[in-house]
Amino acid sequence: MIIGNNYGHGGDVYKNSIRYDFSANVNPYGTPEAVKKAIADSAEKVAIYPDPYCGELRKKLSEYTGAEEENIICGNGAAEIIFQFVEALRPKKTLLPVPSFSEYESALKVYGRDVELYQLKRENDFAITEDILGKIDKDTDLVMLCNPNNPTGQPIERGLLFKIISRCRETGTWLFLDECFVSLSEEGACGTILHELRKGDEVFLLNAFTKLYGMAGVRLGYGICLNKEMLEKMCSIIQPWNVSAPAQAAGCAALDCGVWVKEKKEKIFEEKEYLLSELNALGVDHIAGVANFIMLCGLPGLYEKMLEKGILIRSCANYHGLKDGDCRIAVKTHEENKELIKALKEVLGK
Amino acid sequence: MIIGNNYGHGGDVYKNSIRYDFSANVNPYGTPEAVKKAIADSAEKVAIYPDPYCGELRKKLSEYTGAEEENIICGNGAAEIIFQFVEALRPKKTLLPVPSFSEYESALKVYGRDVELYQLKRENDFAITEDILGKIDKDTDLVMLCNPNNPTGQPIERGLLFKIISRCRETGTWLFLDECFVSLSEEGACGTILHELRKGDEVFLLNAFTKLYGMAGVRLGYGICLNKEMLEKMCSIIQPWNVSAPAQAAGCAALDCGVWVKEKKEKIFEEKEYLLSELNALGVDHIAGVANFIMLCGLPGLYEKMLEKGILIRSCANYHGLKDGDCRIAVKTHEENKELIKALKEVLGK
Repeated sequence: MIIGNNYGHGGDVYKNSIRYDFSANVNPYGTPEAVKKAIADSAEKVAIYPDPYCGELRKKLSEYTGAEEENIICGNGAAEIIFQFVEALRPKKTLLPVPSFSEYESALKVYGRDVELYQLKRENDFAITEDILGKIDKDTDLVMLCNPNNPTGQPIERGLLFKIISRCRETGTWLFLDECFVSLSEEGACGTILHELRKGDEVFLLNAFTKLYGMAGVRLGYGICLNKEMLEKMCSIIQPWNVSAPAQAAGCAALDCGVWVKEKKEKIFEEKEYLLSELNALGVDHIAGVANFIMLCGLPGLYEKMLEKGILIRSCANYHGLKDGDCRIAVKTHEENKELIKALKEVLGK
Repeated sequence: MIIGNNYGHGGDVYKNSIRYDFSANVNPYGTPEAVKKAIADSAEKVAIYPDPYCGELRKKLSEYTGAEEENIICGNGAAEIIFQFVEALRPKKTLLPVPSFSEYESALKVYGRDVELYQLKRENDFAITEDILGKIDKDTDLVMLCNPNNPTGQPIERGLLFKIISRCRETGTWLFLDECFVSLSEEGACGTILHELRKGDEVFLLNAFTKLYGMAGVRLGYGICLNKEMLEKMCSIIQPWNVSAPAQAAGCAALDCGVWVKEKKEKIFEEKEYLLSELNALGVDHIAGVANFIMLCGLPGLYEKMLEKGILIRSCANYHGLKDGDCRIAVKTHEENKELIKALKEVLGK
């Protein structure tokens, strides 16, 4: 929960009166029926405490991911896990490429000491380059990466990612790798590194159900880590019942929705092509990335003008290195995307 | 979530094969239909992020409790709020009467420094006495009390509670007062102190939806505090979306269930009378307390023997000052209570 007006994310449909929300990167086709049903059914058994072991969910996640159950941790949304990880590690020095998802820095402000912001460059479309390897040294306790990144949608080139892991092995540095958008990336554009991890690697992989299965409201994320001491530490600093029963039920149901996911992803990337061609036709500067969102660049006042038209987009002005006029839009359904383009044309006077 | 076998609470129906669960102190009449419906309905809108302000819920809580919205904080279960409060305060010295709910100590182990365990005495039926006043001094940063207490069900005598608050004012000590079982206490036996608080009081009142409305699975608790800096601090150390959409919807619906609550509470205390008369007839030593549970004393091996009969009760052997044979039972429906008494008679050979 937050108090006051310092909410710095997309999806705030509570303080804005809007027709369309393009600010949250959630699957535009909503929630699979099986997931909704699991949540609705869980209402009948809600008097019972949730399983503190997340037993069934972790078993299914193990089958789904190929990771061992004992290496899987579940949380009240991926955001909780970010805080929980940083708190468990309490890194003295952290390397944080920016712009990136702001909850990393929020957690580091509470539980980290020195944070070295590593400014990604516009001329590289904010992609991470080999340059980062020189920034990781023996004093670096932690590197926090998002692959593909948010709000830019940029993937980390796979060879470079392995070099980063290798460098972290040399320097005794933890790598926190947020893979929440891997499953909402174009086929083949960005894969998990789970199966490349070696025993002893100090790597934590973060994932969410939120976006892919349209279940942001129910809060469910998970992490995978081969270092059991880290997972035990993370569990020791929170209550035993953090993952609700509806969330556990929804997660179990979601993992059986492979066909639904495949269908919806195909549509999302068809729609992304549509949006990109329209943006190109309008001459709007943008970074396409590989995920289910697009970053628009250099259109000062766009956020406010779109909001006047009842369309909420994500102003990126509060990201490091971005400014007023840099905005993120989610790829939504065709009808919604047409409305977005129509409004954009009006705003741009085209 | 927890890893391994170190779960020290009631309600673990996941690792035990049982017929009846008397170990969790939840309303035995389940969940109001309106609450179940709210959860089921929330499934339709679960693609949307939950309201990070908990706006509607806090408004309804304000009307329900009489506290100002700005003094209300919501959490992912009362247990989360315990951790969040202790973390925000980071008390150097805490006075903790025991036996009491174990999550206070769990949170203090992580975020507190010195914890002075103040052993309550069997000869007083583990009630808090005036003796506690002398234990609070200028070095005491925090006192954590549970009223009525768990697992003993003992209320703090109201005059004494005011003396404790007064003493805390003198010594600059925070009072964390868990009132989660106030609403599940006998009529008139234990009231909230919300309306006696004065501006400037460093008092935090904890409350839950879990027990009264039979919604442990969905996770929802709240706190009330007149000190806004404390609430802001507490919000700054967690993610913005900790309270799920189903939980917020369930909470709003629950607050309209006053008639249901009144009916069920009457039944619960009729049933408690039944259990107490049976326990007296069996000559079982016990502490009745004022809440919806009873502590049985001095029956070594009872937990295991009841579990053999498919009945899960709460062994209190892991509470400070209690031992094997001290057990807590929840008051349940008449049919269930009869089964408990039947099994107890068999175990005791009566």
